[in-house]
Amino acid sequence: MSCITLTTDFGLADPFVGVMKGVIAERAPGCTVIDVTHGIPPQDVMAGALALLQAAPYFPDRAVHVAVVDPGVGGPRLAIAIETERALFVGPDNGVLSLAAAAQAVRRIVALTETRFHLPCPSATFHGRDVFAPVAAALASGTPVDALGTPRETFVRLTIPAPVEGMQGTVGEIIHVDRFGNLTTNLSAARLIAASRREVTIVIGGRTAGMVVSYQDIPRGELGVVANSWGYLEIAARDASAAEMLRAARGTRVTLHRAPTDG
Amino acid sequence: MSCITLTTDFGLADPFVGVMKGVIAERAPGCTVIDVTHGIPPQDVMAGALALLQAAPYFPDRAVHVAVVDPGVGGPRLAIAIETERALFVGPDNGVLSLAAAAQAVRRIVALTETRFHLPCPSATFHGRDVFAPVAAALASGTPVDALGTPRETFVRLTIPAPVEGMQGTVGEIIHVDRFGNLTTNLSAARLIAASRREVTIVIGGRTAGMVVSYQDIPRGELGVVANSWGYLEIAARDASAAEMLRAARGTRVTLHRAPTDG
Amino acid sequence: MSCITLTTDFGLADPFVGVMKGVIAERAPGCTVIDVTHGIPPQDVMAGALALLQAAPYFPDRAVHVAVVDPGVGGPRLAIAIETERALFVGPDNGVLSLAAAAQAVRRIVALTETRFHLPCPSATFHGRDVFAPVAAALASGTPVDALGTPRETFVRLTIPAPVEGMQGTVGEIIHVDRFGNLTTNLSAARLIAASRREVTIVIGGRTAGMVVSYQDIPRGELGVVANSWGYLEIAARDASAAEMLRAARGTRVTLHRAPTDG
Repeated sequence: MSCITLTTDFGLADPFVGVMKGVIAERAPGCTVIDVTHGIPPQDVMAGALALLQAAPYFPDRAVHVAVVDPGVGGPRLAIAIETERALFVGPDNGVLSLAAAAQAVRRIVALTETRFHLPCPSATFHGRDVFAPVAAALASGTPVDALGTPRETFVRLTIPAPVEGMQGTVGEIIHVDRFGNLTTNLSAARLIAASRREVTIVIGGRTAGMVVSYQDIPRGELGVVANSWGYLEIAARDASAAEMLRAARGTRVTLHRAPTDG
Repeated sequence: MSCITLTTDFGLADPFVGVMKGVIAERAPGCTVIDVTHGIPPQDVMAGALALLQAAPYFPDRAVHVAVVDPGVGGPRLAIAIETERALFVGPDNGVLSLAAAAQAVRRIVALTETRFHLPCPSATFHGRDVFAPVAAALASGTPVDALGTPRETFVRLTIPAPVEGMQGTVGEIIHVDRFGNLTTNLSAARLIAASRREVTIVIGGRTAGMVVSYQDIPRGELGVVANSWGYLEIAARDASAAEMLRAARGTRVTLHRAPTDG
Repeated sequence: MSCITLTTDFGLADPFVGVMKGVIAERAPGCTVIDVTHGIPPQDVMAGALALLQAAPYFPDRAVHVAVVDPGVGGPRLAIAIETERALFVGPDNGVLSLAAAAQAVRRIVALTETRFHLPCPSATFHGRDVFAPVAAALASGTPVDALGTPRETFVRLTIPAPVEGMQGTVGEIIHVDRFGNLTTNLSAARLIAASRREVTIVIGGRTAGMVVSYQDIPRGELGVVANSWGYLEIAARDASAAEMLRAARGTRVTLHRAPTDG
């Protein structure tokens, strides 16, 4: 039995997530179900895609990743499953699965047209319960992806905005603000490592932050840049929220400067 | 081993829920425990009852549903278990179990007077830990309901407020606002289907919303009415919060109008 | 297989907690993982220590308790495991484990220096994923504590502030505010019981609260003192938030008075 992960914008105050787990418990008893997060901002498909991209690599092979950020529920958007070399992805075909799936070798894409794997009489408003949970339970129990519906050639893909080389340096942006107010940029740390013989700083909101190894290396009251756990450059404050200090949010521009180091 | 569900107003910032799960893990090792929600507003017994009503049908047979919204903890209110044809319900006898249990065929009601199934020296403030979790663990492990205490004939029942026929149409009210700001009314969709040859609109806060099949059918900036996943008519906005647009909350009045359709 | 508990300040909006569970599912398949709480205020080590102190006694023997409130991550602070007579504790050596571990008989302390039990190439910002989750999985799977690194003699200890005897009575303070606005003091209920032949009141913010058995014994609009589920005196309001009524927070002073009772 594979494990199932859940990524949604349902929050935890309503019983939506519990109901999905009930459906899974009924159809795949004993299956381990793990919440990635249910705190995706309502209908923010990109935020859901980024969370799943970040989380998926840390789950066991053959994990079934369900993501439901689904403003188009009940409309013409497809419901799909994607099989990759490492895992299975289930959700609406609106891009929410795309970053995580595309980071692995995609093998099969299927539109979830075989309604015998869904709950009877599905609603037009809660496919998490009526379609995605029962399909995930079927996959976790060993049903092959092919059985779930008709093959597809493609799926809707999102892309993380790419940094742009400008006169002043590389212009990037904030793609995620975490609970601590740390600001993840779209500047990959690997890119930086290639430039490691130069001193790197990031300018954001008129302030400058230099590279440090860990949060504790940031002087109090100042900002620093770390290579974060996700492989991106991140702007952080010492024991404080960089987001609050800078009034920064997703989309805030940053500029990366490189200066030759001495020697 | 049955699964256990938990519905409380404990929130997730305090360790209350984790402690209940510790007690269950000690007494029913390997039992699957599923959170319905812990985000019931503090001491809002009706909200807890509605969440459990909504969720319970989706869990496996013989599930043990624990609900703890319990302003009377430590006082004279009874602690009870209710056995129905499909499931078991455990909690205070203040109505929090009543909507979900009454929706199934009730077989047995027991006051939880057999203290050997409780933790020793129970507190007067946390029966979730001291009474309901260990009793749920006993039930999930196969202890018969009868063993838990003395039989009762009745339990405290809540009722969902019924719509009223008025001069202008059927007058109902909002019974739940979900994370997305969608407004669940007390108007059942089945009731509407019986009237399906007429065009239906709902008036709320001076605005009119017409029936749509799914959220995507609502024009931007407007409101629509869907038959929601729970079987009720729900007022929603397109990619926005109807609750914010209308400043609506639980208890806000709505009026359903029926007009004969052409042909 | 032991169960694993998690106590962090990660919140539930980011995928941090889900990722830790992915690592555990990979390395200790089938292990039961229970959230104590992820709602510890960011970087509030004492709040994390108190939550774990409160929760740990209710978990099965040999539970592996992971606590990650870790402002010093990536810096010189040690990562440790502590074995006690009843359980295992894993986290940064900054005191977050100390209250719960010291409440049991400590047997062994180990610095987590054996990197073969960590993820390869650990980040400097997320040891929950890279160090503590895989170490917990190893412990839950039966790896002896000794194998994880080098023995230590001590660990960083926090202490709950002790009440002080003053002219007006015993001066204590609020150590926790729960979701309901109930105020846990640092005055132990056992201490009170020793003084049980005297009438006890607590003064806070100019108001006086008398002892009651349960919340329901508090007259509406007033305050009362209960012996709470954690063994401390707690100031509560009837069906309302004492914290809001008193504008009280952690650290707010309280004074306990004892008057001889009649007879």
